[in-house]
Amino acid sequence: MEVTRTLARFLVNHRYADVPEKVRHEAARSFLNWVGCAVGASRHETVERALAALSEFSGPREATVLGRGDRLDIMLAALMNGTTSHTFDFDDTHLKTIIHPSGPVASAILALAERKPVSGPDFLHAFVLGVEAECRIGNAVYPSHYDVGWHITATAGVFGAAAAAGRLLGLNEQQMVWALGIAATQSSGLREMFGSMVKPMHPGNAARNGLLAALLASNNFTSAEQGIEGRRGFASVLATERKYGEITERLGETWELALNTYKPFACGIVEHPAIDGCIQLRNEHKLKAGDIESIALRVHPLVLELTGKKTPQSGLEGKFSVYHSCAVAVIHGAAGEAQYSDAAVRDPAVTALRDRVTATVETGIHEDQVRVAIRLKSGKVLEKYVEHAVGSLDRPMSDADLEAKFRGLTEGILSRAETDKLIRLCWEVGKSKDVGEIARASVPAAAAR
Amino acid sequence: MEVTRTLARFLVNHRYADVPEKVRHEAARSFLNWVGCAVGASRHETVERALAALSEFSGPREATVLGRGDRLDIMLAALMNGTTSHTFDFDDTHLKTIIHPSGPVASAILALAERKPVSGPDFLHAFVLGVEAECRIGNAVYPSHYDVGWHITATAGVFGAAAAAGRLLGLNEQQMVWALGIAATQSSGLREMFGSMVKPMHPGNAARNGLLAALLASNNFTSAEQGIEGRRGFASVLATERKYGEITERLGETWELALNTYKPFACGIVEHPAIDGCIQLRNEHKLKAGDIESIALRVHPLVLELTGKKTPQSGLEGKFSVYHSCAVAVIHGAAGEAQYSDAAVRDPAVTALRDRVTATVETGIHEDQVRVAIRLKSGKVLEKYVEHAVGSLDRPMSDADLEAKFRGLTEGILSRAETDKLIRLCWEVGKSKDVGEIARASVPAAAAR
Repeated sequence: MEVTRTLARFLVNHRYADVPEKVRHEAARSFLNWVGCAVGASRHETVERALAALSEFSGPREATVLGRGDRLDIMLAALMNGTTSHTFDFDDTHLKTIIHPSGPVASAILALAERKPVSGPDFLHAFVLGVEAECRIGNAVYPSHYDVGWHITATAGVFGAAAAAGRLLGLNEQQMVWALGIAATQSSGLREMFGSMVKPMHPGNAARNGLLAALLASNNFTSAEQGIEGRRGFASVLATERKYGEITERLGETWELALNTYKPFACGIVEHPAIDGCIQLRNEHKLKAGDIESIALRVHPLVLELTGKKTPQSGLEGKFSVYHSCAVAVIHGAAGEAQYSDAAVRDPAVTALRDRVTATVETGIHEDQVRVAIRLKSGKVLEKYVEHAVGSLDRPMSDADLEAKFRGLTEGILSRAETDKLIRLCWEVGKSKDVGEIARASVPAAAAR
Repeated sequence: MEVTRTLARFLVNHRYADVPEKVRHEAARSFLNWVGCAVGASRHETVERALAALSEFSGPREATVLGRGDRLDIMLAALMNGTTSHTFDFDDTHLKTIIHPSGPVASAILALAERKPVSGPDFLHAFVLGVEAECRIGNAVYPSHYDVGWHITATAGVFGAAAAAGRLLGLNEQQMVWALGIAATQSSGLREMFGSMVKPMHPGNAARNGLLAALLASNNFTSAEQGIEGRRGFASVLATERKYGEITERLGETWELALNTYKPFACGIVEHPAIDGCIQLRNEHKLKAGDIESIALRVHPLVLELTGKKTPQSGLEGKFSVYHSCAVAVIHGAAGEAQYSDAAVRDPAVTALRDRVTATVETGIHEDQVRVAIRLKSGKVLEKYVEHAVGSLDRPMSDADLEAKFRGLTEGILSRAETDKLIRLCWEVGKSKDVGEIARASVPAAAAR
């Protein structure tokens, strides 16, 4: 069976008119979320160190590092935006594979779109096709590939970046076969790196290397014909089990992007039901911390195993404390990066409420669920059962939720007016005449050079 | 056991004074051979297409593409020189692992040496250490890693490039740990690509990515601490068996570079004994093709299996014909790239002699051996038993052989005087005040811009 060629043929021949409206809208949602994450982390130490190391080697500075005044050549810009968008681990998730789909794909093609104007439909189409390629390849090797130790966002992402960039560059079928092959032979990224700075650089590398693959292929630089399915190809070498039908069947009929999800909270997903429940009760009852006697959670065992830290000392530790997370959820009605700063973790109002949160394991409760009981000083008890946490496929974040998340991420970096404009441009990306404009609009006036 | 840290500590603390003279000389031999291969392939279509795709994205053009007027930023120059030096598959071989050691390492550090002057001792030391790192890591995972389908020159080479570049950049122990980790998470390269243009780019990618790793680490960009031996690290994820002692034991006592070998002939290694025997008889008896009635070879079975093509039609097919190879060996006394051109394969003098070569399998003969019997028209029979082919560890190419090979490679690209100068500079690399000068001396006057 011709896996690589079948996929390549689809990628070069598919028509935008045949992308369902729902998928187009999901693409805009994914893009908005990706831009917000990238801008939000653009001042992070990880980003500063990478730029300090690499900026001086930049070629023609045609592309923007989102949220910053820095401009870089398109390959370095793809590397950096892929890195910033994953730095907070707050980006999107294709739950079937744990791939964060937008990072590798959007980073590669937004850089290209700054080199030569690209229309909204062309951009969104390339984005949808890139995500389709990376997630289908991910589906074909998941879970054995991930279990071996590969960071699938990087290893599958390089195909997505190559596919999307190749589509924008107008590759023919043979060139797309080569682009996928050149991507295959660069596929890399180890889970061992989780917890270090190079981990968020994985989708950046995937973006850069996928873009390189497409550029080489557009100049008829060849690879093997069966980069994915060959005896020594990607799927055989990097996974112990393979389901090629996941790549070749029903192409153009199903869309992986429709399965994309977004994290509402800047912490591990197991805490999300508890945070969700606390925010719901807070909003329904206009709760103030001072009204509350105690908060009792009944949770899935993983919550205590992974996020059971009683007295976190730093922002990072706060992410591993369901107690802290519920306290900020009640006090701020949010659990974004701002709620996981070192200052937020030490805030006396937060620590006082945090110490009144308890969590006990309830047998039979699903990972996606929680029971929250808030006892008020008045003696009244407010209860909430969360059946599916917000951000799950069953209860996706609304467009308004995504906007609120975006505002939380860009606060302190962009002005209110700049954020408003950028949100509008992201929602309207499909109608844009020049998508590169969105990258430039992400730069605060104060930082523009 | 701390594998990555033990290796890093060795790499940053070792002193050049403790590199044995024999190893230093082998480093110069390896370097000479590498420069010759890179210059020789610098006009190849593979190189032209890659440059057409990538040159316009170059940053500061601080480094030379060997043999060409093109200058590129150091990361792209490392990519291109790693590619050219492997394009003819005529570079060096660490026989224990089939790693071609010089490509990734020399490509990375020669580019650095053009950015800021580097002395001969510093350069050779970094080179020796880089080769030590990549070959020891190769030893630790060979053969299971190769058998899975990894192109070990690329996957191990990225560590060598990171180690050597990191040494030149003066990394401390912790930074070297990070450089090796960032290298580990970029380790890639599939054997599936053999036979396509991206295959020779593998060592180029290793050079570029290793250099990137060292540059990031020098700015305190972090990786995991156990990039090699961690549970989800390089050795566990990319190999099914591991021998960490190969990395950590007797560091500084044994030198993998001392095991390096060089190909005398531009074709598969199984034909080398037959070519060697023919050249020896030719030279000893001043043979002319016209004197010869027939040539009878008694060979290892693999010779006919891999190189049994009777009537090759192209230069590439000529490489898979022991008949053609023996004919050019007698006529030209050589089997370099020039003897595998399309024209050489169609040369009537060559085809006439080629058709008088026969080969039969001899049981019990070793792969490294051959029996050649040349029957002259006079009736006389000249015989030669080759016990170890030239280029093997048991019968290494002499310095003069390496020079002759170099001249064959650079012919038609450099003038005689330019070649003489470049050879001299390569032999004297250990005494150079500015090794970057060698890169610049590889550019023919006609091409210099």
